[in-house]
Amino acid sequence: MSNNATEDIVINRAESTKIDAVNFDNLVFGEIFTDHMLICDYKQGVWEKPIIQPYAPFLIDPSAKVFHYGQAIFEGMKAYKDDNEDVWLFRPEENYNRFNKSAKRLAMPEVPESVFMDGMKKLLEIEKEWVKKGIGNSLYIRPFMIATGPGVIAAPAKFYRFMIILSPAKAYYSGEVKVIIAEHFSRAANGGIGAAKAAGNYSAQFYPTKLANEMGFQQIIWTDDATHSKLEEAGTMNVFFRINDTLYTAPTSERILDGVTRKSLIDLAKRENINVEVRPVLVEEVIAAAENGTLQEVFGAGTAAVVNPIVGFSYKEKYYELPKLDNPIALDLKKKLTAIQHKVAKDTFGWTVKI
Amino acid sequence: MSNNATEDIVINRAESTKIDAVNFDNLVFGEIFTDHMLICDYKQGVWEKPIIQPYAPFLIDPSAKVFHYGQAIFEGMKAYKDDNEDVWLFRPEENYNRFNKSAKRLAMPEVPESVFMDGMKKLLEIEKEWVKKGIGNSLYIRPFMIATGPGVIAAPAKFYRFMIILSPAKAYYSGEVKVIIAEHFSRAANGGIGAAKAAGNYSAQFYPTKLANEMGFQQIIWTDDATHSKLEEAGTMNVFFRINDTLYTAPTSERILDGVTRKSLIDLAKRENINVEVRPVLVEEVIAAAENGTLQEVFGAGTAAVVNPIVGFSYKEKYYELPKLDNPIALDLKKKLTAIQHKVAKDTFGWTVKI
Ligand SMILES: Cc1ncc(COP(=O)(O)O)c(C=O)c1O
Ligand SMILES: Cc1ncc(COP(=O)(O)O)c(C=O)c1O
Repeated sequence: MSNNATEDIVINRAESTKIDAVNFDNLVFGEIFTDHMLICDYKQGVWEKPIIQPYAPFLIDPSAKVFHYGQAIFEGMKAYKDDNEDVWLFRPEENYNRFNKSAKRLAMPEVPESVFMDGMKKLLEIEKEWVKKGIGNSLYIRPFMIATGPGVIAAPAKFYRFMIILSPAKAYYSGEVKVIIAEHFSRAANGGIGAAKAAGNYSAQFYPTKLANEMGFQQIIWTDDATHSKLEEAGTMNVFFRINDTLYTAPTSERILDGVTRKSLIDLAKRENINVEVRPVLVEEVIAAAENGTLQEVFGAGTAAVVNPIVGFSYKEKYYELPKLDNPIALDLKKKLTAIQHKVAKDTFGWTVKI
Repeated sequence: MSNNATEDIVINRAESTKIDAVNFDNLVFGEIFTDHMLICDYKQGVWEKPIIQPYAPFLIDPSAKVFHYGQAIFEGMKAYKDDNEDVWLFRPEENYNRFNKSAKRLAMPEVPESVFMDGMKKLLEIEKEWVKKGIGNSLYIRPFMIATGPGVIAAPAKFYRFMIILSPAKAYYSGEVKVIIAEHFSRAANGGIGAAKAAGNYSAQFYPTKLANEMGFQQIIWTDDATHSKLEEAGTMNVFFRINDTLYTAPTSERILDGVTRKSLIDLAKRENINVEVRPVLVEEVIAAAENGTLQEVFGAGTAAVVNPIVGFSYKEKYYELPKLDNPIALDLKKKLTAIQHKVAKDTFGWTVKI
């Protein structure tokens, strides 16, 4: 990563900090933001100088294309602090590359590494007090880009704003997660934007998820929209199935986000000599495995929760309860991945990057 | 329509008008906005009083869910002025109902009629100088709603903003439109949000459309994502095919927007004793008709352009040119519909509503 550009970042420091008012033991995910944010504007072909300034609302035109045509993408990553007070990122180049892939799919400009990476590092340096030590503590990083260009004609904007905001996070425990397998609704399609971290994808999930919630399920396992026969993602996470001591997860595609946690878990599982098969996972084989007792675990994988074990699922109005294992792979992999991220275990993969 | 609530609208008038600086003979669609806009905020279950105030940028939090999770919907409609200086809307209840359908699909609150309709009428009264007489002139109306609630957790917001902005428009002539039939990309899926006027849908179209532009085509005819065998929409319009003197258009579905222009053209064509069949239109039958000379016309239908004739299309790298007819149905229907909208022809359908 180049760091030539940090001198080019304009810094306007906040006059005071909000940190003393924050209860770090009692954080709700994504609600509190740090003192500063990064802004970088794109005007008709040129990225301007990034600015770090106090976190605050900003002015935007009512006709900005983000409001009308949904040009908006984001990333989600975390910073961790080790026992030496050093701050670490986890595979940040994966998020950077995915961000620019999302940008391309939404006809938005790619963000230079000097803005995304150096801007993020500078912002984290300024906010390092907000990264707390200890397994489970992290500073959630939200880079995003919106179309600020005005005009209510359906065409890509000429003006964009890239921003980074930061939110302190605690280990994410979402309770007992029951899911429902999607038989009708879908979050993505072939030829669509499901593989992009595009804002519009999430807006599509809320209503079906609300219906699932009303039926007592926390999340939906999304299936392919054309046949609803393949299991693709769980809520806003990738999804793994453990059947007969083999882990199965779908290959990434146009419909599936190429998750950093997913690919890290695959590598980690292989290192642990766990059988992993990346191939389409069919609803019918998982139902059969649940019925003949070979389905051992189902879990989601994503940056926010790392690993999210699922206790049961519903399909065609029938509920399938998963066994309660003494040593689930889900928790073992979560522990091992978290230990690498927090610099407690040796990072044999070279995934961690010091700020 | 109730109009009980107009007294409840707070009005802050602009100190001056921008209208004198506008060249109404040379308008680019969607670039200029009138002096005022309407804002109505929704806070945790309650719609506040609508406010009409000078058009201007507004403040919004960087973590507003519209930026991250794409909760954003809109409508597009027009106001017309007749020779008596009266201002008319065209089937506004259709847009109102569709707006609330979109809201529901995106887990957003429905907007009361007193806010949407009475707010729009009040705003149009104030801006009536911006509606110019004459066929082709109109004031484009853009109601929209965004999630203003903060927080980077993927869940529906608790705060929303409904707005109406207005933009003067000239008859929309888009030049010779050549289209390409989608063989890979898609704008909508079964179980998705294609039937909602959701911002995210449009962001998905830009990149494929850019690729089409680079190949010399202005728009894409979208096909069903699962099989790409059915012709569904053209760009951001519904689409009609005239084969052997019958008009064909796809039935609305979860993948297709229920366009007001489309349904009005169907009624108008029936009144003119034109055969209309609403049923899935297959790519292969249109190709066969193009090859055997029975394909007479293809046109898009939507509020902005009313009717947009297509001169040719490409499929599997072959280009099919449409015949140049002396009296195309497309232009005849456009003329008749425009005449109703502008109160030049008798509105036998009861579609027009006076402000
Ligand atoms: C739709 C979707 N799938 C999967 C993931 C997991 O990706 P990652 O592990 O990179 O966080 C995310 C993001 O968290 C997501 O939004
Ligand atoms: C995707 C899409 N299809 C069709 C239409 C046409 O709808 P209407 O005739 O109501 O403008 C629109 C909006 O203009 C649209 O955005």
